[in-house]
Amino acid sequence: MTTTPLSPTPRTRLRRSKERAATDRQALYDVLQAGMFCHFAVVLDGDPLVLPTAYGVDLDRGPDGTLYLHGSVAARSVVAAPEQTICVTVTHVDGLVLARSAFHHSVNYRSAVVLGTPRLVTDPDEKLHGLTVIVDHLVPGRSHGSRGPNKKELAKTSVLALDLTEASVKTRTGGANDDPEDLDLPYWTGVVPLRVVADEPITNDDCDLLVPAHVRTRANQLGAPAATGW
Amino acid sequence: MTTTPLSPTPRTRLRRSKERAATDRQALYDVLQAGMFCHFAVVLDGDPLVLPTAYGVDLDRGPDGTLYLHGSVAARSVVAAPEQTICVTVTHVDGLVLARSAFHHSVNYRSAVVLGTPRLVTDPDEKLHGLTVIVDHLVPGRSHGSRGPNKKELAKTSVLALDLTEASVKTRTGGANDDPEDLDLPYWTGVVPLRVVADEPITNDDCDLLVPAHVRTRANQLGAPAATGW
Repeated sequence: MTTTPLSPTPRTRLRRSKERAATDRQALYDVLQAGMFCHFAVVLDGDPLVLPTAYGVDLDRGPDGTLYLHGSVAARSVVAAPEQTICVTVTHVDGLVLARSAFHHSVNYRSAVVLGTPRLVTDPDEKLHGLTVIVDHLVPGRSHGSRGPNKKELAKTSVLALDLTEASVKTRTGGANDDPEDLDLPYWTGVVPLRVVADEPITNDDCDLLVPAHVRTRANQLGAPAATGW
Repeated sequence: MTTTPLSPTPRTRLRRSKERAATDRQALYDVLQAGMFCHFAVVLDGDPLVLPTAYGVDLDRGPDGTLYLHGSVAARSVVAAPEQTICVTVTHVDGLVLARSAFHHSVNYRSAVVLGTPRLVTDPDEKLHGLTVIVDHLVPGRSHGSRGPNKKELAKTSVLALDLTEASVKTRTGGANDDPEDLDLPYWTGVVPLRVVADEPITNDDCDLLVPAHVRTRANQLGAPAATGW
């Protein structure tokens, strides 16, 4: 697909720390591809509700790509979502930035905020596609390493499709930035790098199969050796 | 402090997977103490906005403890928050639960959702206290290992205080739970454990001090050896 630049709307224009804003759409895709879970918000009776959930992305669907969410057909948040603007936020925390001054403490991160009114997916093929995209997003190849949903399971599940049109991306990298007058203070300054890792897969008690390649590949990828710097 | 049970309100009563709901307040504190960042949502012009941010907790302030957030005095989300109900969600993802059926794929997690109308902290002592709680939440002892905020910095920063009264906690642990008729399917099933780890702290180029004990302690704590099971 060709990618259009991220064109901020009033809702996604970054007002603070603008130097941290990414303007290319690829930055959005990178944050989404690297993430496993999002926090998604709906407004229920006027109040916001933020819940963590899995997601998947199909960059070839829709003009700017499509993000899929799923949930129980009975979940309040899922029922309410297609009637309103929702917000989907994906955050990677890459490090604690410890400055000499408390004020300049910060975080190295990559985050994406997507806004839009999701579409309840009713087409059976797209619904199955959306669920496949979500499971393969968490563990690539898993849709072939498990039994797909049957009619009864599909009837219990709602799939939401959100255009990736209206979004913002913000990142921070690098060391701490203290004010010049603080540089001689007797405080250590630097970054504590953080990352998510996988440990050795734990086979269910009721399963005597070996850990398959797609699971081992995913675990190894998440257990990759530490980066040596930024 | 004495802890009162978590008493769900209509907004925090869990409607789905109720067996995953924790009812003791200590479960809430445990999730909050173990987390580093939250996702907090406000409603702006009718639409939800979810942003990642740091937080801190003082269990001895208020009847049920207080959660502190901070941000620029100019940030739209921070300005809007004291006028409305906000939602603060803290999530720990502990593992990918891979079932034989796609439908029973799940996630091991601990999550807390706190709702309430935050108070803009105007008392100078409490404001400084809130900021200290936040920085020490990320790295215990850091408030003594850095320069505290001066008047100018305090004037640029807003601190919000949210009572921990209205909250829900949800957790999932253990292996995958397939339907009885799927137990003989030829698919591996189990859990890929996930956790956040710290790598070796990276000292700023403009700093020639050794990594201090409080930073090393925090990094070591986050780099703790893998749990061997659940």
